[in-house]
Amino acid sequence: MLTTRLCLLTIVAEGVLRDRLLGELRAVGASGFTAAEVQGEGSRQRRVSQFMGPNVKIEVVIGRDKADRLLEILSIDYFPQYAVIAYLSEVEVVRGEKYV
Amino acid sequence: MLTTRLCLLTIVAEGVLRDRLLGELRAVGASGFTAAEVQGEGSRQRRVSQFMGPNVKIEVVIGRDKADRLLEILSIDYFPQYAVIAYLSEVEVVRGEKYV
Amino acid sequence: MLTTRLCLLTIVAEGVLRDRLLGELRAVGASGFTAAEVQGEGSRQRRVSQFMGPNVKIEVVIGRDKADRLLEILSIDYFPQYAVIAYLSEVEVVRGEKYV
Repeated sequence: MLTTRLCLLTIVAEGVLRDRLLGELRAVGASGFTAAEVQGEGSRQRRVSQFMGPNVKIEVVIGRDKADRLLEILSIDYFPQYAVIAYLSEVEVVRGEKYV
Repeated sequence: MLTTRLCLLTIVAEGVLRDRLLGELRAVGASGFTAAEVQGEGSRQRRVSQFMGPNVKIEVVIGRDKADRLLEILSIDYFPQYAVIAYLSEVEVVRGEKYV
Repeated sequence: MLTTRLCLLTIVAEGVLRDRLLGELRAVGASGFTAAEVQGEGSRQRRVSQFMGPNVKIEVVIGRDKADRLLEILSIDYFPQYAVIAYLSEVEVVRGEKYV
């Protein structure tokens, strides 16, 4: 199979940030995502009101440039204020043109 | 720890395809999977009736050969008709013989 | 973006093991995790009472040393008795110091 290398960006945040985060994804031109409810706990930087309730885990397959732009937005507008984590991994997709 | 390199294949599709997709996994000899309900949106190729309802996210750890066979099946029988995305990543497992 | 390479450890197990597994994570000093309910099936080593009910999927971003320690604990105390799978992948994170 002919595949293309892209990034999988995963964001875990308190549930109330869901729509705002999905808005950021759309704003950078991410062409698809999945979102699911998860339970989470950050043992050091936990804030009681945040990581006790349901969190949202958002996953999006995108190009590295858009992933970096999203990480930058998260670093500036989210990390200082909210219990948000984000990580990138490499994935291979078929029909890579759909995602960039 | 002694680990083996295998593939993690992730498939996200509309919920009604769940059992059919799990049948494809079994048919190629995938020895285990997880399935979970997620919300999804594909901003370009969305079809209203599809990515509005709950989607299913299926994950399976398999060898590269079986992963490629599944991507081929998806490309021929699913991608032209359904809003399905699939991506591969590298994982390391303990007891690799369980998965191949 | 300046990122750090860490491991994403994913553990899928029968739901009743949830709290015990989260205890193992805390014991090795994992600083955060997510847990979500998934359906699972292991076609070869399935045990009827186990992989029929809801399973739990736990994900944690940690350093390789802690990931290896957890895989060792799983190998000794869980794999022989329970239908548990675990896999590691490489991820990049911003603010890597939060996770190690």
